[in-house]
Amino acid sequence: MQPPVETQNVLRDGFVEFAYGDPDPAVLPVELLREAADRLLRRSDAAGALAYGPDLGPRALRDAIVARSAEREGLGLGADQILVSGGNSQALGQVLTDLTRPGDAVFVEIPTYSLALGVLADHPVEVNGVPMDDAGLDVDALEEAVRRARGAGRRARLLYTVPTFHNPAGVSLALERRESLLELARREGLILVEDDVYRELVFEGQAPPALRALDPEAPVVRLGSFAKTLAPGLRVGWIDAPPELFEIVSADGVLESGGCVSQFSASLVAALLEAGVYDDHVVTLRRTYAARRDALAGALRKELPAGCSFTVPAGGFFLWVRLPRGLTASKLLPVAERHRVGLAPGHRFCIDGDDRHLRLPFSLYDAASLAEGARRLAAAIGEAMAGAS
Amino acid sequence: MQPPVETQNVLRDGFVEFAYGDPDPAVLPVELLREAADRLLRRSDAAGALAYGPDLGPRALRDAIVARSAEREGLGLGADQILVSGGNSQALGQVLTDLTRPGDAVFVEIPTYSLALGVLADHPVEVNGVPMDDAGLDVDALEEAVRRARGAGRRARLLYTVPTFHNPAGVSLALERRESLLELARREGLILVEDDVYRELVFEGQAPPALRALDPEAPVVRLGSFAKTLAPGLRVGWIDAPPELFEIVSADGVLESGGCVSQFSASLVAALLEAGVYDDHVVTLRRTYAARRDALAGALRKELPAGCSFTVPAGGFFLWVRLPRGLTASKLLPVAERHRVGLAPGHRFCIDGDDRHLRLPFSLYDAASLAEGARRLAAAIGEAMAGAS
Repeated sequence: MQPPVETQNVLRDGFVEFAYGDPDPAVLPVELLREAADRLLRRSDAAGALAYGPDLGPRALRDAIVARSAEREGLGLGADQILVSGGNSQALGQVLTDLTRPGDAVFVEIPTYSLALGVLADHPVEVNGVPMDDAGLDVDALEEAVRRARGAGRRARLLYTVPTFHNPAGVSLALERRESLLELARREGLILVEDDVYRELVFEGQAPPALRALDPEAPVVRLGSFAKTLAPGLRVGWIDAPPELFEIVSADGVLESGGCVSQFSASLVAALLEAGVYDDHVVTLRRTYAARRDALAGALRKELPAGCSFTVPAGGFFLWVRLPRGLTASKLLPVAERHRVGLAPGHRFCIDGDDRHLRLPFSLYDAASLAEGARRLAAAIGEAMAGAS
Repeated sequence: MQPPVETQNVLRDGFVEFAYGDPDPAVLPVELLREAADRLLRRSDAAGALAYGPDLGPRALRDAIVARSAEREGLGLGADQILVSGGNSQALGQVLTDLTRPGDAVFVEIPTYSLALGVLADHPVEVNGVPMDDAGLDVDALEEAVRRARGAGRRARLLYTVPTFHNPAGVSLALERRESLLELARREGLILVEDDVYRELVFEGQAPPALRALDPEAPVVRLGSFAKTLAPGLRVGWIDAPPELFEIVSADGVLESGGCVSQFSASLVAALLEAGVYDDHVVTLRRTYAARRDALAGALRKELPAGCSFTVPAGGFFLWVRLPRGLTASKLLPVAERHRVGLAPGHRFCIDGDDRHLRLPFSLYDAASLAEGARRLAAAIGEAMAGAS
């Protein structure tokens, strides 16, 4: 008897689980990857994909990333300016190891990706929150926070930011703020760690330009990934950065010791890209997730009680719902459980403890389940409000 | 035109490269892995291998590791006491992030695995060397070094050690020293990070018992790996440790964020193990590498000039050659290059700068090439000695 293949998050029977921002397993390109693995491992030089990899990762994959970035972003990188990573979590951990010193001040948005806070907590740095609004990070507030950190004798080292299709807030950083953020970074020597994982999942028009693409000389370390467009379990992403920072990150001892941290999986992704099937797959994903966003947003508009609000994102995986005055996510949680809807409360994403929001991913379920989840959530909010008043 | 799959180390035409301790690409189980990938990705629950993995890694792989350890080492672990890693380099980096504080004193053997020194250099710790002899690490010297670090106001936190089939020294830590090392670790609260990557590649009899197995309660963090027995490019290994340490390491933020750092590759290894083909493969590897060790040792015995000496290892990948008095590896290097033999000089492995040794791997080449390498090396040593006198 084969044991089942377990995944990170267990979905409870009969529940709609809004706690997890995973891609839907049903949209993972299992067959494309099976074919790619078969082609790769039948090649006469297949052993290369199973040996220690070059520190920067398989050349074929770096070439493909460079070509895509040139075509879509006008970024003229060389293959020696791309470092293949083990996904953005591994990459963030590595960047913190390589670029920070004990006691450095680092900055995150309020809200930010909750699990990035866990990665940051493993490093001896001081984490500071900076507020956002509907146009993204408040750059003036960041400047003030940098000044305060300096005043306290700390080195203001880096900002971890998700400027495009923010997790969890759903918004994207406005273009003029991107420019002022880059100006601030250049002036203050502040490194911008740009988590760009949702770029390909744009639903209308074009994704906003990456910080990294807007000014290739600015101190921006961009983390790109195939986690959302191919499969998270492959653990394949990349890092690109201007030469001075790239040199430091690519000299990490783990790379020198083991080579590329995802050599086989990265070779597999390269084999899939070479087959020319990636673009069509991404187009299908965009359509699928856009329809799910519409289904969830439509159901929430219809069902949520007065006093709730949310922004409809132009890409990515998340709606960020503001609860009615007087109701916190922590109060709502046990009520929602009784209505069989699982939630990640907002305070997990907010380093200042703010608990007035919920993150609702529309990535994991189909439209009907999302609508059912919205109905249950609305009922739970109504019940919690009645209990609170 | 497909670009070739590149690997980390480029072998120069016409050279015998003793600089690289890689498994021979020709012995990598490409076909077994192709079949395993095909089976895995045809399963109805294949998407699980491509989704975010459980933080500890695929259960099927952890069960297999537990069963193997119980059978061969008598170690009664549960599957929740194994953490699947991205190989020993990733694991070492993670352990340093999770278990050290800035300023901690850490200890390494002289010589030690050179690339571990690179991983250590990325962390804000103080690295101290401890001498070895033919019976492995000098435990009394370690005790003295711990005392000195304490005297200097540092926390003596951990020892990185390769007790079994040492890289590069080829020796294994004697049993009575294992006992005294464990006693020291328990008494001083010193964590032993046991790099156990060569355990399966034993040529005669049994490998010595792991520190981890000798005392399951002692503060030992064991790093195991499939890099040498299956393929390094898969980036799959594991960490096991007693509960208190295991809890800290398995709470690493990167695992919580991305799940198992090698989810797909680890599921692939599990699929291969389930097919029951691993044991036969390892037996073949043992025979292959033992024959290569004999070929290299035999040729060196015949060819090396007087004044050289080396230990014949009972497992692993390396011979550690002591050069004749008056000759350093750095002096030998350019001469060896002219004789078309590539070398990793001993000072890379020695934190005290000792340069009287060469590491000669017998993993990468067949017997004839190893013998040719030994002839060239002997000629180079002869020439360098003549030049030196």
